[in-house]
Amino acid sequence: MKKRGKTVAVVGAGDYIGAEICKTFAAEGFTIFAGRRNGEKLAPLVRDIEAAGGSITARSLDARKEDEIVQFIADAEAAGPLEICIFNIGANVNFPFVETTERVFRKVWEMACYAGFLTGREAARAMLPRGKGCLFFTGATAGLRGGPGYAAFASAKFGLRGVAEAAARELMPQGIHVAHLVIDSGVDTAWVRERMTASGQEASERVLMRPASVAQTYLHLWKQPEDAWTFETQIRPSVERW
Amino acid sequence: MKKRGKTVAVVGAGDYIGAEICKTFAAEGFTIFAGRRNGEKLAPLVRDIEAAGGSITARSLDARKEDEIVQFIADAEAAGPLEICIFNIGANVNFPFVETTERVFRKVWEMACYAGFLTGREAARAMLPRGKGCLFFTGATAGLRGGPGYAAFASAKFGLRGVAEAAARELMPQGIHVAHLVIDSGVDTAWVRERMTASGQEASERVLMRPASVAQTYLHLWKQPEDAWTFETQIRPSVERW
Amino acid sequence: MKKRGKTVAVVGAGDYIGAEICKTFAAEGFTIFAGRRNGEKLAPLVRDIEAAGGSITARSLDARKEDEIVQFIADAEAAGPLEICIFNIGANVNFPFVETTERVFRKVWEMACYAGFLTGREAARAMLPRGKGCLFFTGATAGLRGGPGYAAFASAKFGLRGVAEAAARELMPQGIHVAHLVIDSGVDTAWVRERMTASGQEASERVLMRPASVAQTYLHLWKQPEDAWTFETQIRPSVERW
Amino acid sequence: MKKRGKTVAVVGAGDYIGAEICKTFAAEGFTIFAGRRNGEKLAPLVRDIEAAGGSITARSLDARKEDEIVQFIADAEAAGPLEICIFNIGANVNFPFVETTERVFRKVWEMACYAGFLTGREAARAMLPRGKGCLFFTGATAGLRGGPGYAAFASAKFGLRGVAEAAARELMPQGIHVAHLVIDSGVDTAWVRERMTASGQEASERVLMRPASVAQTYLHLWKQPEDAWTFETQIRPSVERW
Repeated sequence: MKKRGKTVAVVGAGDYIGAEICKTFAAEGFTIFAGRRNGEKLAPLVRDIEAAGGSITARSLDARKEDEIVQFIADAEAAGPLEICIFNIGANVNFPFVETTERVFRKVWEMACYAGFLTGREAARAMLPRGKGCLFFTGATAGLRGGPGYAAFASAKFGLRGVAEAAARELMPQGIHVAHLVIDSGVDTAWVRERMTASGQEASERVLMRPASVAQTYLHLWKQPEDAWTFETQIRPSVERW
Repeated sequence: MKKRGKTVAVVGAGDYIGAEICKTFAAEGFTIFAGRRNGEKLAPLVRDIEAAGGSITARSLDARKEDEIVQFIADAEAAGPLEICIFNIGANVNFPFVETTERVFRKVWEMACYAGFLTGREAARAMLPRGKGCLFFTGATAGLRGGPGYAAFASAKFGLRGVAEAAARELMPQGIHVAHLVIDSGVDTAWVRERMTASGQEASERVLMRPASVAQTYLHLWKQPEDAWTFETQIRPSVERW
Repeated sequence: MKKRGKTVAVVGAGDYIGAEICKTFAAEGFTIFAGRRNGEKLAPLVRDIEAAGGSITARSLDARKEDEIVQFIADAEAAGPLEICIFNIGANVNFPFVETTERVFRKVWEMACYAGFLTGREAARAMLPRGKGCLFFTGATAGLRGGPGYAAFASAKFGLRGVAEAAARELMPQGIHVAHLVIDSGVDTAWVRERMTASGQEASERVLMRPASVAQTYLHLWKQPEDAWTFETQIRPSVERW
Repeated sequence: MKKRGKTVAVVGAGDYIGAEICKTFAAEGFTIFAGRRNGEKLAPLVRDIEAAGGSITARSLDARKEDEIVQFIADAEAAGPLEICIFNIGANVNFPFVETTERVFRKVWEMACYAGFLTGREAARAMLPRGKGCLFFTGATAGLRGGPGYAAFASAKFGLRGVAEAAARELMPQGIHVAHLVIDSGVDTAWVRERMTASGQEASERVLMRPASVAQTYLHLWKQPEDAWTFETQIRPSVERW
């Protein structure tokens, strides 16, 4: 627990990937700042982390509100310094192009791209004066490939990748490690299993990614020495077609 | 002038690329529907096209307003059918990451990405019942590469590319030719010349792209037969480094 | 026929794409230099072009032999000057990775990559002193994506793309237009139709690319003004999945 | 030293990256099979590894000779099983396009691409019956971008990437983890330091990659669970421009 005093902020601390990230870095001794839309849902995570001797602050956070992100990162920094900031909000939807409403298009962008920009900017503001820190973005296949039905989701994830790239090229020479982790797979969640089963697909550990694997990848990225930083990488199950 | 009766809608009919696109397709016999923020600035273009025997309808159009785009495309279709729709709005800005305001980030996205989605969706709604039409998006280097200072612009242009790709994969098999034209260069405008000269760069025809070259590229894309459609292509001056 | 005196060299002048390229540029008034492994098979092409009033020199050419390429391009230049050089040799094979013999791997590379390097280098030697000319390479999907079974073919086509990119970045600022045209589709040839029919696929004009469409694309690339050169573009039938 | 009995084959075990890979995996308990052109130069590495209690077999190996690769991998498998095979031969040269001899072009390809194919194929033959193993390729920036003067090197590295991609898509679903590691930087070797100093560039640890960082990246790739394999990743120093 040697890193107590340093914080990891997780924006989008959902039940699966987000929760695993929190547990993984808590186990490394970091104080966790976890935000998600409905902060009450973080109760089980708080129990788990505290039971394991870790430290976590859980917050309700609407990441699409600038003032909420500003406050969230400021608090993580105040309790910190902020060592790592991970933006982990997705918004996977699929609609035929002509049936995509402006409301869906805007909301998906606000959640998956705009909130990522706000998060990254605030983290950078905290980290730049120290010339140190990690800023990680969870990406998706849709950030690299716009498939049929994904105008809204691909556009938002492409947009997030644009933020991450611009941030990387600007901030890495200043000591901030920026990374974009592309998850090229369904993730093993109750919802994905249901959806796959419903559509007649195999929904096993063999074809789905475990949230813990994502968290371990972030742990590796954090450990990279400054002479060998990865900006973009992708992970997928062995059987995934791409 | 054999195509009179068919329309080309240009969203973002600025003084340079947009105007050249309008003139080029007017000369092919299309009726032009040209929209830009301040429609009064279209007066010289209207004069030029009408003097040459062409037909054009000029409109003030705030492309970030769904109802305005809906009306603009509906009118182009009513006067048409709508054969070609070209989205041509840029919003090139450069700010250090941490100095990028949420207002700038949102506005650039609304202009360069969200408006492109609205335009594409409405055009698709008009074209799909006929199984025919062209939907073209003007892209930029920043849509493929996020450089320092371009978090807002790259994110929006990446996002537009995501829209274009998803639209292409969905609509091309239904007979709509979707293309994304990457302009990898400064364009020969008064503003770019001034800016280059001010920063000590050569600002000649040799290093800048003529708006007419962009228009000719769109003309070529429109002429492509259905067995050889290009989705994405890029143009740059011979001396441009990339 | 105003360009008589200028030559177009086509390395890999097969019965389909190669022949169409020759006819298309002959119709523009160029003198054609056509090379293929067995030059006797060029007899029908020679008849067609000469019957249409065009000019063509047909040669047996093993493009994997440096001295033969040197001679071929030197002759095209001597009869020229050489305005356009198009490398058009493919070598599509598919074998399981572990069953790919070193002989196949090497031969595919010699045909699809090494010969392309030799061709490009000799053309560049002819064109650079004039600071003018076009050097075009026919690429394939396999040059951008290594699919299962394509270790040999993808490796060669990736390698050709590497040659083309390096040549483009070096030669374009010196006035040579280098382009890499990706054909993302089966081409409408007797052999492809047979193979598709045998495997139960539809083999119609709707799903296959006509050789003439490739030739028209090269014609367009040649016509591009120096402020708007395309390095890489791709063409595919509207219904092709990608 | 629990993995004694399993082998790691390193094709291209040079003084820097190759040697670090050998030491790193020897420290994990693997038996190392190290091959390089002149096997006598491996003496210091053998001393180091054996002094640390590790196990290594050093060989002279011309990786461009099929029979030598076949024997090398067969011996590694016989002493094994072969758990990991790493292809690590580079061949960085830079010549103006028109001054690139066919001998250079062919030799660079044989070293950096053809030898990689042979190595990968033989490793796959050993691993496939067990449905288990790792096949890693050391890539370079030139495998993704063909810069001026790099026709030979980029073509070979593009070609190697084509092999890796085709192998990955074919072998990963069969249990073989294939990865392509792009090193986007100069590596900290005596030769690179000299060359940079000679051209007036800073040649410090800050701008160069330590060979140990490459080895650590391969260690991480080997540890990845089967639900989260990375095919392609890149590493670069924080200050590297890209």
